[in-house]
Amino acid sequence: MSLPQPRTLAEIDTPAVIIDLDKALANLARAQAFADAQGFALRPHIKTHKLPFFARKQVALGAVGITCQKIGEAEVMADAGLTDILITYNILGAAKLARLKALNARVTLSVTADNAAVLAGLVETFTDPARPLTVLVECDTGGGRCGVQTPAEALALAQSIVAAPGLRFGGLMTFPKVGKAAESQAWLAEAVALLAAHDITCPRISTGGTPDFQKAGDVPVATEFRPGTYIYLDRAQVAMGAGTLDQCALTVLTTVVSRPTPQRAILDAGSKTLSSDLFGQQGFGILRDRPELTLSGLSEEHGVLDLSPMPGAVAVGDRVHVLPNHACVVTNLFDYVYFVSGDRVVDVVPVAARGRVG
Amino acid sequence: MSLPQPRTLAEIDTPAVIIDLDKALANLARAQAFADAQGFALRPHIKTHKLPFFARKQVALGAVGITCQKIGEAEVMADAGLTDILITYNILGAAKLARLKALNARVTLSVTADNAAVLAGLVETFTDPARPLTVLVECDTGGGRCGVQTPAEALALAQSIVAAPGLRFGGLMTFPKVGKAAESQAWLAEAVALLAAHDITCPRISTGGTPDFQKAGDVPVATEFRPGTYIYLDRAQVAMGAGTLDQCALTVLTTVVSRPTPQRAILDAGSKTLSSDLFGQQGFGILRDRPELTLSGLSEEHGVLDLSPMPGAVAVGDRVHVLPNHACVVTNLFDYVYFVSGDRVVDVVPVAARGRVG
Repeated sequence: MSLPQPRTLAEIDTPAVIIDLDKALANLARAQAFADAQGFALRPHIKTHKLPFFARKQVALGAVGITCQKIGEAEVMADAGLTDILITYNILGAAKLARLKALNARVTLSVTADNAAVLAGLVETFTDPARPLTVLVECDTGGGRCGVQTPAEALALAQSIVAAPGLRFGGLMTFPKVGKAAESQAWLAEAVALLAAHDITCPRISTGGTPDFQKAGDVPVATEFRPGTYIYLDRAQVAMGAGTLDQCALTVLTTVVSRPTPQRAILDAGSKTLSSDLFGQQGFGILRDRPELTLSGLSEEHGVLDLSPMPGAVAVGDRVHVLPNHACVVTNLFDYVYFVSGDRVVDVVPVAARGRVG
Repeated sequence: MSLPQPRTLAEIDTPAVIIDLDKALANLARAQAFADAQGFALRPHIKTHKLPFFARKQVALGAVGITCQKIGEAEVMADAGLTDILITYNILGAAKLARLKALNARVTLSVTADNAAVLAGLVETFTDPARPLTVLVECDTGGGRCGVQTPAEALALAQSIVAAPGLRFGGLMTFPKVGKAAESQAWLAEAVALLAAHDITCPRISTGGTPDFQKAGDVPVATEFRPGTYIYLDRAQVAMGAGTLDQCALTVLTTVVSRPTPQRAILDAGSKTLSSDLFGQQGFGILRDRPELTLSGLSEEHGVLDLSPMPGAVAVGDRVHVLPNHACVVTNLFDYVYFVSGDRVVDVVPVAARGRVG
């Protein structure tokens, strides 16, 4: 892939993902300082950026390791020199298990499991006590996605892990429901006590999510946090109180291609650029510099900007920054992103870990 | 990019986009036969598949050319030997205009314009009467996206095109509102009459959209149709009556990775695989073989399958085909797709025209 080489923001063709490098690095540093002050480990989720550069930066700042959602992401990060990786996913099937085994031979790896079928695959694949795979039990503390439903189920899986010569019990992991820290704390504390009553200690208790990251103190049982979106933030995170509009580091630079009426402008960014994620928001994004203007509709390559609050506010040819609802799904749509500092383009960076299967 | 080489469906790792080649080719042939019988030209939109193989097949079956939404798509198709390309987009800015000029030197190219600023860029770039660029005027006949708002505006732009030595007036183009064929017909017929009254004839009158393709007879003024999704169809198109479930040629093969409760299964396909497009549907997709089961939620790499209509219907490790709401945005998320015939993998094909900027 040949990459464009613009020197300034004005030379970037649209649509393009723009990363304000200064803001992104400030977001990383602020989160690490908070984790250090609160005394918990930070294990950032790289799904948001999918870039080795930022993963290395996160570890250099003090993260204990990184979190990935797919083996393919973890393989890219291992190739880039990352050495401690948690894959928060149930991994199954011969092809993926073979890749997982190869990965465990070269980095400090851990995965999660929430059911006996997945665990059986891990037990069968990992048989060497000299190079065990670390497995955490995923717990549904309210998120309603994966995870065992009760502490008793967590105990049963933990016992199976402890009994497997090629596995090592890594503790508990949850993807918590936003705003429900107390429920998560109660669930996990009960599970830890139940495990302790059966002489099983939890080396790590891992929770996640940028929205409640600043309320980490409400889940004191957790030893590790896995925020992802905090690096860029986005419209939805700002709405949830995780940061300010000014701290958002990712925008999509677009051009106004049509102004059919004074109340309507069309941008060259649609659902194949911004995604259709609503994430609880009205509309599909806002203008960074005029946040009262909302994208009211998207087709694949067109975005409809509702100008009714400011009729005629933009003209054909204007370039505007869109703040998307959800940053993570936007970077996944692009082969490369631009790092900028002010108006200067610092680098053009391939999204190395996108497009991976499993 | 190294591609996997499975021989059978069972050897494909998930998540994966599966194209039933027999069904896709049947969909192409049926549409061409319909266009031939009705006596209008077919100019398929390649945004859905983004594959040179299918674009060539569409032309071989009788299409007059293809439609693209971006210069980048058109460049890929020109490289693959396609010779007649319409880009249904307002193109502006020095970088894109230079690419457009290079493209016009090697294929029979046409574009659309709906405003004076875009037209000014085309007039300035294309000055050679020996190699003019064909420009159609985009008309908003009810779709509410781009397009001039009145036949009088269409006339004004057409006159500017006619007056430009390096441009050639190609006719009218619209992206119509689904189910509003009568309005589209009335609008276009009025514009054609107004142009005729000013001695301007319309070589082409181009309309589009798979949903109303079978009602092409309701827009007799149109000479050309630009359906895209008809090749694969999807859940939304079936809901709109454009085809049957059995005719859908694209599915996403997934694996059940968790079954936290009897009423809930988790698939390894989320918004980074299926997109979040609702397209008027409830939920984010259905199971092809059990269409009463719906994906009730998505996170980035997980899909929540609501099993309440059939508790316990699937188990961890089961592989199920998801019929997505909207096929076009799914192929855009993948670097390659699998062509299958029955259980046999016929080919693994890079999605050549995805990831293009502008």
